[in-house]
Amino acid sequence: MAPPRDNFNNEINSNDNVVNTLRQPIVSPYANSRDPMSNVGNFKIIESTLREGEQFANAFFTTEKKIEIAKALDAVGVDYLELTSPAASEQSFNDCKAIVGLGLKAKILTHIRCHMDDARLAVQTGVDGVDVVIGTSSYLREFSHGKDMEYITKTAIEVITYIKSQGLEVRFSTEDSFRSDLVDLLSIYQTVDRIGVDRVGIADTVGCANPRQVYELVKTLRSVVNCDIECHFHDDTGCAIANAYTALEAGATHIDTSVLGIGERNGIPALGGFLARMYVSDREYVLNKYDVKAIRQVENIVAESVEITVPFNNYITGYCAFTHKAGIHAKAILNNPSTYEILRPEDFGMSRYVSIGHRLTGWNAVKNRIEQLQLNDLTDEDAKNITNKIKQLADVKALNLEEVDVLLRKYNNAKLTDNSHLLVLQNLITHDQLLSFNSNATVGITA
Amino acid sequence: MAPPRDNFNNEINSNDNVVNTLRQPIVSPYANSRDPMSNVGNFKIIESTLREGEQFANAFFTTEKKIEIAKALDAVGVDYLELTSPAASEQSFNDCKAIVGLGLKAKILTHIRCHMDDARLAVQTGVDGVDVVIGTSSYLREFSHGKDMEYITKTAIEVITYIKSQGLEVRFSTEDSFRSDLVDLLSIYQTVDRIGVDRVGIADTVGCANPRQVYELVKTLRSVVNCDIECHFHDDTGCAIANAYTALEAGATHIDTSVLGIGERNGIPALGGFLARMYVSDREYVLNKYDVKAIRQVENIVAESVEITVPFNNYITGYCAFTHKAGIHAKAILNNPSTYEILRPEDFGMSRYVSIGHRLTGWNAVKNRIEQLQLNDLTDEDAKNITNKIKQLADVKALNLEEVDVLLRKYNNAKLTDNSHLLVLQNLITHDQLLSFNSNATVGITA
Repeated sequence: MAPPRDNFNNEINSNDNVVNTLRQPIVSPYANSRDPMSNVGNFKIIESTLREGEQFANAFFTTEKKIEIAKALDAVGVDYLELTSPAASEQSFNDCKAIVGLGLKAKILTHIRCHMDDARLAVQTGVDGVDVVIGTSSYLREFSHGKDMEYITKTAIEVITYIKSQGLEVRFSTEDSFRSDLVDLLSIYQTVDRIGVDRVGIADTVGCANPRQVYELVKTLRSVVNCDIECHFHDDTGCAIANAYTALEAGATHIDTSVLGIGERNGIPALGGFLARMYVSDREYVLNKYDVKAIRQVENIVAESVEITVPFNNYITGYCAFTHKAGIHAKAILNNPSTYEILRPEDFGMSRYVSIGHRLTGWNAVKNRIEQLQLNDLTDEDAKNITNKIKQLADVKALNLEEVDVLLRKYNNAKLTDNSHLLVLQNLITHDQLLSFNSNATVGITA
Repeated sequence: MAPPRDNFNNEINSNDNVVNTLRQPIVSPYANSRDPMSNVGNFKIIESTLREGEQFANAFFTTEKKIEIAKALDAVGVDYLELTSPAASEQSFNDCKAIVGLGLKAKILTHIRCHMDDARLAVQTGVDGVDVVIGTSSYLREFSHGKDMEYITKTAIEVITYIKSQGLEVRFSTEDSFRSDLVDLLSIYQTVDRIGVDRVGIADTVGCANPRQVYELVKTLRSVVNCDIECHFHDDTGCAIANAYTALEAGATHIDTSVLGIGERNGIPALGGFLARMYVSDREYVLNKYDVKAIRQVENIVAESVEITVPFNNYITGYCAFTHKAGIHAKAILNNPSTYEILRPEDFGMSRYVSIGHRLTGWNAVKNRIEQLQLNDLTDEDAKNITNKIKQLADVKALNLEEVDVLLRKYNNAKLTDNSHLLVLQNLITHDQLLSFNSNATVGITA
């Protein structure tokens, strides 16, 4: 286990000369000191787009598409790829074999019911490991498979022993763990740990868990088993990524993700969102181990394949993830991006965008644009005059950056030629007049 | 403060006869017992679509649109509406007055910098209260406003005293609270609490906080001030809703939301997602106080206005939020929806959809469809035969429900007329053949 690295502020800014000059406490006062069992700086990703993701309403992956996605995920550097059970259909069986045959760096897992028939099929596919699952909540025991704990335990032992005898890695997970009886859970986890399971899994199958519950359950489990602990969270109530993070704090070792979070209902932690969270806690670990710039590519492949639009608010790659708008934000971000950014866009192959042509703009942001355009004769007073004009125009309709630039250049031009720049602002009372400048832009206004 | 209501299982299922028969523990073993200071069952919503939401990259709200959104939010029953500062632009000032004039049930707030000029303008608009904010982190003090703590405290006292003297509710918030010095924070919060501020605010302006940090900070603050505590979280790293929930557990009283979560960068807790989270913890409080069926309407208004698509994975209203696909899920959900659903779709005016025409389907889901279609002569054996055929066809391309129905009816028809139903399955080897049934559907296959 890597030594704990505390304080994200320090991590994030360690290479940033500007920030090193700050009178900034080295340790953020609220960065809770990392628990001894924390794996926040030492976790593995089980990427389940090709299993959980296939359970997304829109998902239909051909073999070729699965291979394309598997390769793109391997490029990100995820530790494992989890595939749909070979027992689901004939093509699912063949797809497992095809992906095993790619020789990727990621280990290949398949996900099966706790049943010997499924286990035998899984072994035949040549995967590196098998994720076994069975429901233990009263709900599932009553309304799904109808089995009691004695039967579940007996079958689990048989299946795990068989898979291990074939030289494969094996995980045993319950389903709906947060609505299962605690003693039942700990009892079966302890049993399978003793017979040598590689990992046990906790699953919030219905998306009901909250972070402090997760912390308590994982911490308790950590004291009962020696093997690794995998966690699987659904996002029905908006806690999936936070629960995953908190589980790692409590000693979990593996987290399930999918591209854009696709899965049953509204899905599980998005690979990109989870890595954003972990980057804030241990930027070095994340950037050394994963190619976060490759996230966008696999998101595009998956989004196109399942016919969805990447959400406007998607982590990292959503089109507004690095857009700053309020005047007070824009001013500070131009002075030092760390003021309003905890993720450096360049680390993710993204760009920062500061929006200035709207009624919430501020003169510092406008001044910054003046400097970018090298209109060096314009003063702070000029920037303030122009900002007031932008706000006035933007009360009717927001200006795009090109329109702001036209205004800045026209003003600059007038100031340099006949000192009529204030007249420019007075005469400019509608968007149409600005647009007419715009159409003349190539003639007289370019700086 | 309402008495704590523990155990969401019990809450959720209290009216559900099916579930009352379960051998289900009354208290879920992991529902952490509610802290004495928890407000999970007693919180208020400060809806900030018309302030934080206006800082979303795409947002440009006309006065008419603001009024439409304000009314739609009032229909949901949110406690407060927060509006853009009247100091932002002339139209912003007039919009405040217009919304105050609507006479809504929600209290109207505006959000200003900690500055007397802004405070005077705010008072002139006629709002019920003023949310005052200033940055206290070293980052913001260095790179944004450049003020020291002594100056901040002095100004805060002046501004708060003035607003209170005008008979208005007043909140004082720091910005970037999770990167501010703890002693500075507690010191200024204690000072403003003593002079009678109604609420203090904690803001994770950059989206760096995680749940256990939030819990610690809010719990500490709760022991220092007597006033209410408002929390504002950004979602850059996927923790906004979980942080809001955990803050309430620690004694926070007010949470900021926006419709679809729109705001700076990728935004803040979505109103719908936050209410989904709270519903799981206290269904009764949420359904008695808020009209959650009205969320969809205001989401549609806002999405159209800011030109975004409601994300596929949006909480509650995303088109797959209540879609179940895997065979094992479909079987259980048909027996009892609580097996895989923590949110009842009907409470939110939504419908459940069980998808069955794909390779992950199971025979129990197919059997359920047979029952829905009242094909009463088909046995379990028949359902299994047909399921195998669906999986075989779906390995090539998923079937929609209409195609599944055609298959079921054709099989049923053949069984009843000349007992040739197995022949139907043998002959049906391509989608085209199924589609040709489909085109004949109106002639001979309708049940």
